[in-house]
Amino acid sequence: MENQIFELQYAMDTFYFLVCGALVMWMAAGFAMLEAGLVRSKNTTEILTKNVALFSIACVMYMVCGYHIMYDGDLFLSTIGVIDVNQVLADSAEAGFDGDSVYSGASDFFFQVVFVATAMSIVSGAVAERMKLWAFLAFAVVMTGIIYPMEGSWTWNGADVFGMYNLGDLGFSDFAGSGIVHMAGAAAALAGVLLLGARKGKYTANGVNAIPGANLPLATLGTFILWMGWFGFNGGSVLKLGDIANAHSVAMVFLNTNTAAAGGSIAALITARMLFGKADLTMLLNGALAGLVAITAEPSTPTALQATLFGAIGGVLVVFAIITLDKLRIDDPVGAISVHGVCGLLGLLLVPVTNGDVSFSGQLIGAVTIFVWVFVTSLVVWAILKAVIGIRVSEEEEYEGVDLAECGMEAYPEFTSGK
Amino acid sequence: MENQIFELQYAMDTFYFLVCGALVMWMAAGFAMLEAGLVRSKNTTEILTKNVALFSIACVMYMVCGYHIMYDGDLFLSTIGVIDVNQVLADSAEAGFDGDSVYSGASDFFFQVVFVATAMSIVSGAVAERMKLWAFLAFAVVMTGIIYPMEGSWTWNGADVFGMYNLGDLGFSDFAGSGIVHMAGAAAALAGVLLLGARKGKYTANGVNAIPGANLPLATLGTFILWMGWFGFNGGSVLKLGDIANAHSVAMVFLNTNTAAAGGSIAALITARMLFGKADLTMLLNGALAGLVAITAEPSTPTALQATLFGAIGGVLVVFAIITLDKLRIDDPVGAISVHGVCGLLGLLLVPVTNGDVSFSGQLIGAVTIFVWVFVTSLVVWAILKAVIGIRVSEEEEYEGVDLAECGMEAYPEFTSGK
Amino acid sequence: MENQIFELQYAMDTFYFLVCGALVMWMAAGFAMLEAGLVRSKNTTEILTKNVALFSIACVMYMVCGYHIMYDGDLFLSTIGVIDVNQVLADSAEAGFDGDSVYSGASDFFFQVVFVATAMSIVSGAVAERMKLWAFLAFAVVMTGIIYPMEGSWTWNGADVFGMYNLGDLGFSDFAGSGIVHMAGAAAALAGVLLLGARKGKYTANGVNAIPGANLPLATLGTFILWMGWFGFNGGSVLKLGDIANAHSVAMVFLNTNTAAAGGSIAALITARMLFGKADLTMLLNGALAGLVAITAEPSTPTALQATLFGAIGGVLVVFAIITLDKLRIDDPVGAISVHGVCGLLGLLLVPVTNGDVSFSGQLIGAVTIFVWVFVTSLVVWAILKAVIGIRVSEEEEYEGVDLAECGMEAYPEFTSGK
Repeated sequence: MENQIFELQYAMDTFYFLVCGALVMWMAAGFAMLEAGLVRSKNTTEILTKNVALFSIACVMYMVCGYHIMYDGDLFLSTIGVIDVNQVLADSAEAGFDGDSVYSGASDFFFQVVFVATAMSIVSGAVAERMKLWAFLAFAVVMTGIIYPMEGSWTWNGADVFGMYNLGDLGFSDFAGSGIVHMAGAAAALAGVLLLGARKGKYTANGVNAIPGANLPLATLGTFILWMGWFGFNGGSVLKLGDIANAHSVAMVFLNTNTAAAGGSIAALITARMLFGKADLTMLLNGALAGLVAITAEPSTPTALQATLFGAIGGVLVVFAIITLDKLRIDDPVGAISVHGVCGLLGLLLVPVTNGDVSFSGQLIGAVTIFVWVFVTSLVVWAILKAVIGIRVSEEEEYEGVDLAECGMEAYPEFTSGK
Repeated sequence: MENQIFELQYAMDTFYFLVCGALVMWMAAGFAMLEAGLVRSKNTTEILTKNVALFSIACVMYMVCGYHIMYDGDLFLSTIGVIDVNQVLADSAEAGFDGDSVYSGASDFFFQVVFVATAMSIVSGAVAERMKLWAFLAFAVVMTGIIYPMEGSWTWNGADVFGMYNLGDLGFSDFAGSGIVHMAGAAAALAGVLLLGARKGKYTANGVNAIPGANLPLATLGTFILWMGWFGFNGGSVLKLGDIANAHSVAMVFLNTNTAAAGGSIAALITARMLFGKADLTMLLNGALAGLVAITAEPSTPTALQATLFGAIGGVLVVFAIITLDKLRIDDPVGAISVHGVCGLLGLLLVPVTNGDVSFSGQLIGAVTIFVWVFVTSLVVWAILKAVIGIRVSEEEEYEGVDLAECGMEAYPEFTSGK
Repeated sequence: MENQIFELQYAMDTFYFLVCGALVMWMAAGFAMLEAGLVRSKNTTEILTKNVALFSIACVMYMVCGYHIMYDGDLFLSTIGVIDVNQVLADSAEAGFDGDSVYSGASDFFFQVVFVATAMSIVSGAVAERMKLWAFLAFAVVMTGIIYPMEGSWTWNGADVFGMYNLGDLGFSDFAGSGIVHMAGAAAALAGVLLLGARKGKYTANGVNAIPGANLPLATLGTFILWMGWFGFNGGSVLKLGDIANAHSVAMVFLNTNTAAAGGSIAALITARMLFGKADLTMLLNGALAGLVAITAEPSTPTALQATLFGAIGGVLVVFAIITLDKLRIDDPVGAISVHGVCGLLGLLLVPVTNGDVSFSGQLIGAVTIFVWVFVTSLVVWAILKAVIGIRVSEEEEYEGVDLAECGMEAYPEFTSGK
């Protein structure tokens, strides 16, 4: 009977992982809709193509080598044997019967693999409307297969950073990935944007030209999808459900994730109203996402009120970050670097406020470690791609839209014929 | 081992609440898409802004005072201490260890908070295309912080209505909120619409002008989202999963919720075909929602066939309600008052048919109590807002669209330039 | 205490069914968005109407007679007594207390009913843009009430095929319905398309005219919805969660379903790139769906790598199938016959590769049995409908769009006025 109880707990924890993983997979749709809504119609087919393809690439690359690098402690060069992943899964299933494992390894892998895709989705929006599709997909292979798994292994698998220091020992903690996933994605995006340059016409002698997105209902839908999927992203990161302490922790995570998004959106709405005089929908959406990113580093220890305030800080910060990036002429069509990078860092730095086991210095070192690793390696990869196949479409293709150039079809052929 | 079983049950019931709550949160996206699809393109950005903002406001206000008013029996004036909510959650987590609590209080709060947002979402559509954004958001603060929690406390917390009578004692029952959530939202909407007046050009000397929505795929998506989210709305309202009787009850609720929506949509499609000669998509969608609202007061006791018929009655009724409201020149762009108000009342009155513990007179008294409270308080709040800041945009702003006036951006800048 | 454990397991397995069923219901939204995105704007309202209505019809017809035919072994003529379904549900709930049943019968019914709708959704896309709405809905009544339940009973209920042979005994297996649901839907669609003919202007003396879909973000959203919903479709088909072996099986199914979709989309993207020189988004989407269909016949026994490869085979195959159907002048606007029919067959034939209990010959016999039954009966029903009420709209209605003819309203009245 003891065994029956264990089996029930195993099943419950496995199912919890799978439900949360399905919600994280759903975030891929959220990013796709958000980005498709915020670009111009002539670049919409391409960004949809990128979003579906990058998710698929992430799933395959993480299976082929990423999971191995991240959780087996091997260097990637030794991990060509794909079959090993299945061995890991099989071992884990058997281990369950020995009482070593508390859930199916396959459910853990499923949950992990959708995280990789999230990190990569962040890049897609920042380089929109001017990057070559196939260069982007080539970068996705390296990012999801190597760059992300390496930094993931330092934190979530406790590996030393190149044998030099251990982030966990330094008091670093990143519950669900404000830094490991979101800031990492933003770092890769920033490297790409710097090499790529701004869209034609975005910055002129007269200042910054707003380039409005073509479909705001889509962008709003994308935000709602991300909001919902984030319950899985953060909620699943408790990693266990099946006893009172963990169940209560999962519940607090759901609650705080929700209220941080609420706080972020209200704060951004008010901030934008004060700065621009209008209820700016895109800032409202970015505020919700900023709140979500900010709470992700530690959604389990704050009270609901603290979570709301942390989200609100993110919501204010993201508005100023977007303005600042535009002043620096760093062109990020969907605000991904501000939302995921700046607020990802904010999230890391807020952890010590409510979690006594974490040190401010540890968070700083961790943030710098992740940023430097991802930014530098990404810069190298982008630079190689630029040299070898080019990363930017031609001026004519950019003017006509990357949809026709890259995908050969318009996203809305009947709605925009005059353009 | 007894304790282990209790812990598992606690975890399962907590997770069930969280999954259902996430589905109810998802309904916010459903309302946003439904309403965005049914208004004209020039008013789309604003309605998206309203929907995201009202959800956030509901989450914060319910945390700040609503939950307290609804479940602590205090008058709201004594509940400024926000920290108390966290104390409630903390107490509840501890209580679990004593065997007093069967799920995490945080999960209960999460499930309750998304309900408040649903009630408020209903208002948003009815006042679309002509109300000032900030007046609406101000109303949302009062509705979600006070008006809804007060009536909620009379039913779901068993409090006496102003110390006078007890709805439960009178044989009133409202399983998941046909009256408490849906009719209440419609009552608040009706009060607003009466003070606001119809859209320019809707009613002329020649009769009623149909004003078609700009994006019917969005409206359909919104309906599907609501249909899906309703499984959480009704299914979670069983409040417990973890034994055979409750699990079977949850299953019957899922099944009946689904089939009521099916019955409602088919009935509305046929009714519209007979009245108008066409397969009217918007009536089909409203029929599905009408069926969902009608079954919400009691989805656990009907057989599947009864649920289908109840839904079908809702589906027929909603078509005539929409026509009647137009005859009365009550302008409700999305049919929210008909769907949630008329069919919410229907749902309450159908409960005694399958639930012997409930009396028809009790349902009537409960319906009147809820309606009068919400309608009168809402009317007062709307009237104050009208006097102080105004609730209607200027004629010119209405003609140009509230998007530019309130939000400073178009929802589809590339698709409708000629309009 | 033994009993308490049983009750917990019952509750967990019931909830697992309900969550998976809700995800399959969500696939209805996926088909609606996919098809609405791939047709022209003038035919969008009608395809939305069809998708909502067919889902509702499926739910009602399966309750009225389909479930009975499929799982009670009665011929449908003896199953008019609707009340029986409720009796089945009631029996099943009681049975649980005897230890005979491991989950609520209502949850099983809910899971089964949404499958029927999936089969019917497949038909809708293939006959788009030219079929009469009410003829389609009449076909839906027969398909969901009789044709699908009959073939379902041969496989998932183990009934003999017209008393002649037993597919299970012959070594046939179809885990979640590559054949029973997907190929069956495609067979019904093919019969309809053959009687209906191609859209005007699709095939001319000069060859095949591409008719681009009006809204590719919608089509992409639909694909993501289907991808997510498929976790419920395949994951729920394990039929049980609550012990280690089953939980691990459910986890492998989630993992393999995801990776097959990833493999399919990448393979289709590359294939299309090689054939057409462009990153064809619609082929990418069809590739993902092809991978999902191909893994559906057996998602539990392949390794993750095998699942990826099976999906990739589907992704390549679907591109060539679409091209071939166009050469044969079989006009399928959304590629449903290629995705669900050709890749459904592929899925069946791949089962013996990883499942030793299944024979290749059994799969062939099963595939032929299902196809012949569904194709022939569908052809008869379509032919009767054609003779009695006609199945094709008039040339003028087709030219103007079926939206105005059938539904009396445009899907995007403000976006396409010039067309």
